[in-house]
Amino acid sequence: MAEGGTVPERDPSALLAAASAGDRAALARLISLVERGGDGARQVGRVTHPLSGRAYTVGITGAPGAGKSTLTDRLLSHLRAQGTDVAVLAVDPSSPFSGGAILGDRVRMQDHAGDAGVYIRSMATRGHVGGLALSTPEAIRVLDAAGFPLVLVETVGVGQVEVEVAGAADTTVVVVNPGWGDAVQANKAGLLEAADVLVVNKSDRPGAAEARRNLEMMLDMNLAPGPWRPPVVSAVAATGGGVAEFWDSVVAHRSQQQESGALVARRAVRVAAEVRAVVLHLLGARADGQCSGPAFDQAVADVAARRTDPWSAAAGLLA
Amino acid sequence: MAEGGTVPERDPSALLAAASAGDRAALARLISLVERGGDGARQVGRVTHPLSGRAYTVGITGAPGAGKSTLTDRLLSHLRAQGTDVAVLAVDPSSPFSGGAILGDRVRMQDHAGDAGVYIRSMATRGHVGGLALSTPEAIRVLDAAGFPLVLVETVGVGQVEVEVAGAADTTVVVVNPGWGDAVQANKAGLLEAADVLVVNKSDRPGAAEARRNLEMMLDMNLAPGPWRPPVVSAVAATGGGVAEFWDSVVAHRSQQQESGALVARRAVRVAAEVRAVVLHLLGARADGQCSGPAFDQAVADVAARRTDPWSAAAGLLA
Repeated sequence: MAEGGTVPERDPSALLAAASAGDRAALARLISLVERGGDGARQVGRVTHPLSGRAYTVGITGAPGAGKSTLTDRLLSHLRAQGTDVAVLAVDPSSPFSGGAILGDRVRMQDHAGDAGVYIRSMATRGHVGGLALSTPEAIRVLDAAGFPLVLVETVGVGQVEVEVAGAADTTVVVVNPGWGDAVQANKAGLLEAADVLVVNKSDRPGAAEARRNLEMMLDMNLAPGPWRPPVVSAVAATGGGVAEFWDSVVAHRSQQQESGALVARRAVRVAAEVRAVVLHLLGARADGQCSGPAFDQAVADVAARRTDPWSAAAGLLA
Repeated sequence: MAEGGTVPERDPSALLAAASAGDRAALARLISLVERGGDGARQVGRVTHPLSGRAYTVGITGAPGAGKSTLTDRLLSHLRAQGTDVAVLAVDPSSPFSGGAILGDRVRMQDHAGDAGVYIRSMATRGHVGGLALSTPEAIRVLDAAGFPLVLVETVGVGQVEVEVAGAADTTVVVVNPGWGDAVQANKAGLLEAADVLVVNKSDRPGAAEARRNLEMMLDMNLAPGPWRPPVVSAVAATGGGVAEFWDSVVAHRSQQQESGALVARRAVRVAAEVRAVVLHLLGARADGQCSGPAFDQAVADVAARRTDPWSAAAGLLA
């Protein structure tokens, strides 16, 4: 400081100050640090955590090809017309073999190029699936602390990780398409349990009314319904049809949660889950320690030779 | 023993002896014990582990609707015509909200009713996703110890868990359908990395030749190819077309692995992964212990009030 000069490129406090002033390169660097994990991510977390908690988060998930990206893009235009600043985090647990969604990201960013009120960023796992569940809330806190009042978290693909990531939002939106199969698959994947708002996208196609009926029927079958019943909204993201109604449902859910106190309770549950996930991660690092070296090699050899079984061997390693 | 009488219904040794003699109720009970986890599963593991290691396991996975069940059923008929005894484990990480594949299972079993050389069984998670990765190898060992020389592990749905479960086999078969999207999705889900044999099912539909070309192209893009290049086989499971050729590819992979020593190495890697997974599970149980009680509640309250961040709080709990 005394000597002046440029901001150290890895100092999280300076990066956050710059990001809050609109420096997108600083913002991108902070999220890259989070994505990379380790000490850098921990330092970012210590800086952003005290300044976070103001942003509202909306998770958007659904099967591949359901039209989540198109819906998100249309929603961006709708929100920007209302003057709302918004950040999009596209979470892609893609295979390291395939490469990720970088190209799609660049194409999407061009649509909103020059708009200082929009920030779009993808996050990938690079092979560490467990990592996304930990790094996504940290990335959300970066965007939150940098001043975005609204963060959309879009997940690519459908599986346990995506459900967890999209479910860890203030409002979770599940996108399905016309057709009985899609609604059933969404149910099987546990998506309907996570949904606060259901969108039947591509609802100009045959079977849309049936899809809505099926979803309502599956909601009826929920044996433990809460005070909020997820509305089923029709949309045609390709033309923008239904996007305003979809957003109105999210706003209604937000109001209901704020007025009932459910939002505070939901966030407290999320904090507990996150602390538990970090505890598990730290114990996993200890497991890595237990699962290397001569004792581990001997245990594996004993199991392979059937002198002992995996559970007895594992218990022995931890004894 | 001295007093004689019936076999205690939960004694794993007696159940395994009965199962090996063809008692299907005893076999079903052993797998239910494994599915339920806990001490019962551990006792079954201690009995079956020393007697396992003889069965060859084939994992069959792919996107929902790809035709895995139909292909497996046709394969059963093909194998039974050759006189091979075979067990099928259908692993379904379904939502507890939906219920599982019990009905489908019963329908399928009827096709092979009265055939003592076939056993079909589904396993579900009932909400514990991590549980399947642990209980599937244990269920395989039950079938192995009971004398089945071949165990087919069919996974329902597609996600990280399914890839892990199907990938933990001696030969992993990935089923796709004609159409560029399906091959790309399979690639994104990490399925192509896990595949030893690729089946283009429904190959009487348009786009089958293109799907094969796309798969070969993606295999060409693999930067670290091994000595075995996964063959791409065409099939029409609905009519049984291509099923013999598909099985010949599995047999060829088995021979290649046995002759090269790759099978022994692959199984050793699997044992190490399983012991590590059990260590992590046991540490997770410890985490549950750390994540309850006043200290945990205080840590969560501190994070929620932003007096500390999740990582510092978790480290504090473990200190």
